[in-house]
Amino acid sequence: MNIRLIVKNLGYVLVIEAACMLPSLLVSLACGQPDFTAFLITILLLIATGMAISRIRVEHDDLYTRDGFAIVALGWLLISVFGALPFLFSGAIPRFIDAFFESVSGFTTTGSTILTDIESVPKGLLLWRSFTHWIGGMGVLVLTLAILPSAKAGSLHIMQAESPGPAPGKLVPKVGQTAKILYAIYIAMTLVQVILLIIAGLPVYDAFIHAFGTAGTGGFSNMNRSVGEYNNVAVEIIITVFMFIFGVNFSLYYQGLKGNFKAFWRDEEFRFYTGTVVIAIALIVINTLGTVYQGFWDSLRYASFQVSSIITTTGYSTVDFNLWPVFSKAILVVLMLVGACAGSTGGALKCIRIVLLFKAARREIVKIIHPRSVHTVKIGGKVVSEEALGAVMSYFFLYMAVLVVSTLIVALEGKDPVTSVTAVICTIGNVGPGLGVAGPVGNFSSFSLLSKIVLSVDMLIGRLEILPVLVMFSPSSWKRVNI
Amino acid sequence: MNIRLIVKNLGYVLVIEAACMLPSLLVSLACGQPDFTAFLITILLLIATGMAISRIRVEHDDLYTRDGFAIVALGWLLISVFGALPFLFSGAIPRFIDAFFESVSGFTTTGSTILTDIESVPKGLLLWRSFTHWIGGMGVLVLTLAILPSAKAGSLHIMQAESPGPAPGKLVPKVGQTAKILYAIYIAMTLVQVILLIIAGLPVYDAFIHAFGTAGTGGFSNMNRSVGEYNNVAVEIIITVFMFIFGVNFSLYYQGLKGNFKAFWRDEEFRFYTGTVVIAIALIVINTLGTVYQGFWDSLRYASFQVSSIITTTGYSTVDFNLWPVFSKAILVVLMLVGACAGSTGGALKCIRIVLLFKAARREIVKIIHPRSVHTVKIGGKVVSEEALGAVMSYFFLYMAVLVVSTLIVALEGKDPVTSVTAVICTIGNVGPGLGVAGPVGNFSSFSLLSKIVLSVDMLIGRLEILPVLVMFSPSSWKRVNI
Repeated sequence: MNIRLIVKNLGYVLVIEAACMLPSLLVSLACGQPDFTAFLITILLLIATGMAISRIRVEHDDLYTRDGFAIVALGWLLISVFGALPFLFSGAIPRFIDAFFESVSGFTTTGSTILTDIESVPKGLLLWRSFTHWIGGMGVLVLTLAILPSAKAGSLHIMQAESPGPAPGKLVPKVGQTAKILYAIYIAMTLVQVILLIIAGLPVYDAFIHAFGTAGTGGFSNMNRSVGEYNNVAVEIIITVFMFIFGVNFSLYYQGLKGNFKAFWRDEEFRFYTGTVVIAIALIVINTLGTVYQGFWDSLRYASFQVSSIITTTGYSTVDFNLWPVFSKAILVVLMLVGACAGSTGGALKCIRIVLLFKAARREIVKIIHPRSVHTVKIGGKVVSEEALGAVMSYFFLYMAVLVVSTLIVALEGKDPVTSVTAVICTIGNVGPGLGVAGPVGNFSSFSLLSKIVLSVDMLIGRLEILPVLVMFSPSSWKRVNI
Repeated sequence: MNIRLIVKNLGYVLVIEAACMLPSLLVSLACGQPDFTAFLITILLLIATGMAISRIRVEHDDLYTRDGFAIVALGWLLISVFGALPFLFSGAIPRFIDAFFESVSGFTTTGSTILTDIESVPKGLLLWRSFTHWIGGMGVLVLTLAILPSAKAGSLHIMQAESPGPAPGKLVPKVGQTAKILYAIYIAMTLVQVILLIIAGLPVYDAFIHAFGTAGTGGFSNMNRSVGEYNNVAVEIIITVFMFIFGVNFSLYYQGLKGNFKAFWRDEEFRFYTGTVVIAIALIVINTLGTVYQGFWDSLRYASFQVSSIITTTGYSTVDFNLWPVFSKAILVVLMLVGACAGSTGGALKCIRIVLLFKAARREIVKIIHPRSVHTVKIGGKVVSEEALGAVMSYFFLYMAVLVVSTLIVALEGKDPVTSVTAVICTIGNVGPGLGVAGPVGNFSSFSLLSKIVLSVDMLIGRLEILPVLVMFSPSSWKRVNI
């Protein structure tokens, strides 16, 4: 481990976090609310710590995969801890673990909350809470790479560790340039959504809050009843469509910008993602029509919003889907596990992995029927290496193993089984609301200290795709440390 | 596909099923109960059909993997259909789907029942029900191979398709001889248990019923309240220990017979299996002591029995674990997924697969930390081929995929989520009781026709380890058919 280089990079990250807090500081100043001091103190702390540790002298700048993973894992832990301070200092969230949970939930774009009355929280804090979604969605280290001029070849390891999906790549040869392109697309799409939401009738502040939550596929709202509060069909349609858009692999938008629109439909993952959304909406419409909703358009409206919200792991809601029939709820739980596309801001397993897992499984059947043929798994016409396939299959098992172990720990506090399981599924998948107590009209305030810690770790594990966190916990990572 | 050879083999299987029904016929005759006629008609039907189709002229006796898989999948479907007839003809179970469910549940050693009052069913039928466990545990085709003198090299494919676990092998070079050894061990251990149960105070009939259910890791009892009815500590200890014993890979007993007792502890799967049992019992004792049970011995007694029953996928119960705390129930659900050892009569994923999945996952972490080393997965000191590892990982995904799809279909009828999920988990894992309505004091009678069909298919899928069933459903299996 190249400890000095890791520490130096963490310093940059903290300074950037300080910069990210400025808009919230200004809002709190403008509103004359007491969270101003909390932001000021936190920003000074961040700058002081960040400046101090980024000045460390680096002996050599070799950056291996393990170093990249360490920077990402530690970086996310640090920004979450510092990100919790404004909630704590302002007194809006009195206990550290709750403030940490809220901060992790923000950065990991989960959107699970421990707040029982969101609307009573100062505006600066709510903006910060939603802005963490926006930063966390594309990645705070990708942001660092986009801003720092010194991004070198080794930085690819950082980007790979932070970007979601099995094989995140560069759009252009230079890592820093790729990061800039990604953020440019991200900013442009977010601004379009802000403008549309304002046109649809949302106040400017609410438009930004919900655009940040949508873009990062996070799900924090400034309303207790989430998007349902507005009861505005135009707003719901805009958010439904944009949630879907932010769940698509960003490299397809880059292709689109270059005029290659065929790239979308040629992309197997995009087809699977779109198909799953359509089928899920259709099944829920059929299941809820005549039971929960009397009209087809009502049923379609609520099914579309909730499906788009859950599969992209955003977590906004316009209805309490706890009240839906078991079948529709089960569909949502499956979507919570599947998630959006790799290379999007969405979480969970990602469609590409599900596609690869099905292809690998089909191969086992073909092997029996035609034992003498050559058996490779292809995606988009290209052969997937056995190593990449093995990594995806192991990832699936690890995901399930973390899910099972976490559920056992959360079950210790004795909440009902559906709440316990879905609380874990929706945090590890960075979805936000689960079912039962953890449902869309509920919150996580009643969970025990132990459960909140486990669920916070699950959010980080889910966002960073397990391996960076596990590499951190592996003793052999720390055997050969260079200081 | 070598259709003629497949059909011929199916003929043998039916004749052997007729022979297996004889003890039940005799009991029904001795008891003078009305199920006698039902057995007689079924046996005649079996012999007529079996004899007729086994006389088919075989053009060539090449048996490929796909043929072996076809024989096993169709064979199990056929014996389940014929096995349901005595229930139907006697009127004990008036609807075919219910009789079929009970028959499949028997042969697949699941032990889920649709009977609401077991004790009112004639003795011959209850014996048949439990005897199907015993035949299904080791495998009806393994039995055929043990009896038929003509077992050839290609028969290995049949045995592999029917035997549980990722890499079932031969104990001795000849397949027929291996099948004989397996059945000899099986019969001997079953008889020892029968004798012990009689000594402990069970009536001879009950001793056989419960020994069959234990040996096959099935779980059908002749008592409404299962083994709990007797409230006999000695009986519980015997069954607890024998359930554990029948969950061990039988090849280890063969090693033991040859004096190689070290083989047990050297076997990584055996260590994992034993460790899991001990840890699960300890956790449940801690969790239930002082809450459900006041005394340590009570807690230990009930925890041991239930853990041994669930991990081996037997499904006997001495208490209603529906009333346990959520944590203890969650432990049981995990055990339902894990299952016993490969090469035992137990079902579910099997310990060896879990061990391999953990090793493959650990390798992904090691790859990041030490990218330049060679990364192989070993078990018992031997390198596991990447192909075998890929098969295990695909199996895990397919298992989960079947579980998810089945749960969605079962959820359609609107039973509570815990019942819906655990009904699928406990049928695909061949466990027997789940939680909620499907719990140990409940039964499956209230499930819809569609759910019963899905759960029956899940039992077959679980017992035959998915692939034979999927190969059957694959159109390309039937492209090159030789008649």
